[in-house]
Amino acid sequence: MGASETGHKKPPMTASILERLARYYQCVRGINDADTITITSAKIAESVEVDDTQVRKDLGGIGLRGVPRVGFERSDVIRALREALSLDEAHRAIIIGTGRLGGAIANYAGFSDLGLTISALFDADSRIVGSHVGSCVVRPIEQMESFIKERNIRLAILTLPAEHAQETADKAIDAGVQAIWNFTPGRLRVPEGIIVRHEFLAVGLCILTHHLGMK
Amino acid sequence: MGASETGHKKPPMTASILERLARYYQCVRGINDADTITITSAKIAESVEVDDTQVRKDLGGIGLRGVPRVGFERSDVIRALREALSLDEAHRAIIIGTGRLGGAIANYAGFSDLGLTISALFDADSRIVGSHVGSCVVRPIEQMESFIKERNIRLAILTLPAEHAQETADKAIDAGVQAIWNFTPGRLRVPEGIIVRHEFLAVGLCILTHHLGMK
Repeated sequence: MGASETGHKKPPMTASILERLARYYQCVRGINDADTITITSAKIAESVEVDDTQVRKDLGGIGLRGVPRVGFERSDVIRALREALSLDEAHRAIIIGTGRLGGAIANYAGFSDLGLTISALFDADSRIVGSHVGSCVVRPIEQMESFIKERNIRLAILTLPAEHAQETADKAIDAGVQAIWNFTPGRLRVPEGIIVRHEFLAVGLCILTHHLGMK
Repeated sequence: MGASETGHKKPPMTASILERLARYYQCVRGINDADTITITSAKIAESVEVDDTQVRKDLGGIGLRGVPRVGFERSDVIRALREALSLDEAHRAIIIGTGRLGGAIANYAGFSDLGLTISALFDADSRIVGSHVGSCVVRPIEQMESFIKERNIRLAILTLPAEHAQETADKAIDAGVQAIWNFTPGRLRVPEGIIVRHEFLAVGLCILTHHLGMK
């Protein structure tokens, strides 16, 4: 495709639009019913808990126009969302820290539909190095930087202990990583142009405990 | 405390306010520096990526007033957020599905600070039943409903295969569960008054792959 000044580049999207598009994709992709040829914005809106008008606006923004009272072709929606989210490109990632959470992510089948391939796992614990997680062998953390450079890895998944997260992220970025999926509890400082997605699982728990406290 | 019509009940909060409060808590709690007595809204705002004015408004909503150019007492902020989020109450939960993700959650030390105790783990796989995850033994899924009733469990964490998620959630709710933390990819249908928090990990991945696709 290639970026150009004449407008062939994908438009930049805000984090909140992207988050909604990703949720629409999960919704539409998750329908396992082969008879579902069309889907309405109302159905997506209900499932994702977003306003119907917003769904139509967002889908319009990626070039989709629905038919009144019929909706959208499901296959069109999937294709447009996959393109907007770059899901058809192969994304090779490494996992740093191979405790239970790292292992869970390495083995989660659903991510391969999103273009994710785990190229390697790394751990600082010499007792774990050499063992297998899924089809990958765990490598020593000292090899991380050369692996990133040699294989041109751009995505790193951080599931290591929090106290080593920043230092390890710095090294991975220096070696060429451009996107970090962070499962450690702290916020990472990264240079401009590097993308971090923080998965603060504790936030979800806080919301649930608040509601339980209200009962 | 007890709800009353004279206003002693905690005010209901929207999901987005709660999400922000939970993030503020993670930020303020995460400062491991014993010398940090006060914290400014600007510092919280920067860390959480929320507007400074919004932070002050949210903290005002839970009764906190900062001092200009000084900020808030860190211990006051922690105490008020813990109360708003009901983190000082004990929340006994069960984990349903003890694959790697279930095991990761059962063993994640950070959740105990949030009042979470895992009372039991359940699995449908008889080969796993009887094994230990952390300090808990894995119980057969057939015992789930009686356990929920006997121990008055109100929070269930779902980390089982997606195809059994809805049916299992229905049974857990029938037995008395009032809040569900859902890590399976599908959206759950629940009766009114039951709270579900969906952790759609794939959403984070989609956002990262979009950005990598733009490069």
